[in-house]
Amino acid sequence: MKLFTAQRRHSVLAFGEQRLIVAIRGWLGDASPRSPFGIGDDCAVVPSSGRPMLITTDPVIHGQHFDDTVPARAVGAKLLKRNLSDIAAMGGRPVAAVLSLALAPETDARWLRDFYRGLAAAARTFRVRIVGGDITQGPRGFFGAFLTLHGEAAGSRAVTRSGARAGDALYVTGALGGSLLGHHYKFTPRLTEGAWLARRTEVRAMMDLSDGLAKDLGSLTPRGLAPALCGPAVPVSRAARRRATQTGTAPLAHALGDGEDYELLIVVARDADRAAFERAWRTRFPSVPLSHIGGFVRAADRAALAGAINLRDYNGYEHLR
Amino acid sequence: MKLFTAQRRHSVLAFGEQRLIVAIRGWLGDASPRSPFGIGDDCAVVPSSGRPMLITTDPVIHGQHFDDTVPARAVGAKLLKRNLSDIAAMGGRPVAAVLSLALAPETDARWLRDFYRGLAAAARTFRVRIVGGDITQGPRGFFGAFLTLHGEAAGSRAVTRSGARAGDALYVTGALGGSLLGHHYKFTPRLTEGAWLARRTEVRAMMDLSDGLAKDLGSLTPRGLAPALCGPAVPVSRAARRRATQTGTAPLAHALGDGEDYELLIVVARDADRAAFERAWRTRFPSVPLSHIGGFVRAADRAALAGAINLRDYNGYEHLR
Repeated sequence: MKLFTAQRRHSVLAFGEQRLIVAIRGWLGDASPRSPFGIGDDCAVVPSSGRPMLITTDPVIHGQHFDDTVPARAVGAKLLKRNLSDIAAMGGRPVAAVLSLALAPETDARWLRDFYRGLAAAARTFRVRIVGGDITQGPRGFFGAFLTLHGEAAGSRAVTRSGARAGDALYVTGALGGSLLGHHYKFTPRLTEGAWLARRTEVRAMMDLSDGLAKDLGSLTPRGLAPALCGPAVPVSRAARRRATQTGTAPLAHALGDGEDYELLIVVARDADRAAFERAWRTRFPSVPLSHIGGFVRAADRAALAGAINLRDYNGYEHLR
Repeated sequence: MKLFTAQRRHSVLAFGEQRLIVAIRGWLGDASPRSPFGIGDDCAVVPSSGRPMLITTDPVIHGQHFDDTVPARAVGAKLLKRNLSDIAAMGGRPVAAVLSLALAPETDARWLRDFYRGLAAAARTFRVRIVGGDITQGPRGFFGAFLTLHGEAAGSRAVTRSGARAGDALYVTGALGGSLLGHHYKFTPRLTEGAWLARRTEVRAMMDLSDGLAKDLGSLTPRGLAPALCGPAVPVSRAARRRATQTGTAPLAHALGDGEDYELLIVVARDADRAAFERAWRTRFPSVPLSHIGGFVRAADRAALAGAINLRDYNGYEHLR
């Protein structure tokens, strides 16, 4: 068995990302516990002798997550912030990170210095300690930085992606789309907001938006339910409008499909006092928009879905393409 | 500032591995705490609300850590075992791992299946749970798997690399050298041995051998001291002898410089009852050799170093070359 194949049908590309993740769970079998203790949530929740640990891992790879227009410092900061966003999505508090680098021999040491300085500055801002790592030589033209971040629940629970029920409401923070114009590395992970939300008992489930609302919503939707989104309620960013003008497309398509929003998507219980919840949010976070964009209905309930956005019309970010 | 440079003097290659690691510590500044709480030991020790956490990260990259002669299953197992060896070196117990993959689109899904099955089998053997991960597309011809392993001290302490004093004795497990002939992926991490050693009060410091004894010893040697190794006492593996015959070199050179031994290097206090220590080892691990290979002396003590191996004559594995 060779590592690489010339036959496309045997390649991971032919598999596609979603099928590959399902297959990997099968291959790992009982070596990988069920979500949230295993694959499938923003972070893995690991029982420990103290508070449950949260672990997440995300890389930045040249050509995938940044290009030569992004300053080295911003690349280092983005690497940490992507992972912080996953901790935020569970209502966690970050603690420590390790970094594994694979870099081409011709990597400029001055660029690398700025990358590390950007990482260090973000680590100080968000009170994370960089506690270890590894450096390995990679092939020419390659730069990949693979960070693993550890944290713990900020309050008494970690909020997972599961738990939504029919009738629950969907909220989103900030405004969506157009991240390519700068937001993809200029964002601030919603750590304070996530920790606050985890303490609210009406919040049933939560995740951060990385691949675009249209695709990410799937991970929050239990079997038998469907999300019913109200188009005009979706907060479209100014960048999404600019991209739409540049490319002659619909702003909503960018808000739903661009990815790298790093905003929080929140499920609020159907019996909650939503007005009180919204008021409490505005008092605590007066400058961060919180939008009620729809809710979950039974998938068989065609009437409830009439007029809702058909999410299949909008593609999210596909990691293998 | 560009990521890659055409001028060799600015490249990380010109920096070299050791200088680069020192530079990185400077760039991170106070975002990175001191060893063992930060960079510089086999694992980072992270204080937590429960027992101190151990974290380590090591990848396998095609062309660096394996080639097409190594079965996919063995590559998956090696990835976990390399990291387990670091946990073993601190007397730790492994708990959970996350895996970040960067893979070329033409990666064969059947190879990947065997890789994951090998990883899962090793995870079951060593009671590690694979709790999460990430998959990102990499450039053509690239396969890198970056694993981060979490554990905790098996007993009351984590044994670090620091603590050796003049007069202390040096021991090593197993036999060294020639890993290229198969040991580099067929080894068993010394978890049981490491946990046992951590409970022995005469053990002052410990590490695992990954880059070759000649190079690795430097990390165990405090300023002002020098290791005095007795050449004939160094356990030379059969593979090292075979390599020496194949290449017309000295077997000892392979034992000191080949790397990927994954054996434990142990510092035993000068005032310990070494005979009792060796007896206890033989009773507990009758089939694992333990060799007394020398000790630490003051670097200024020329007389004590006469007749000892001059380690500068032997190169360890250099990660950037």
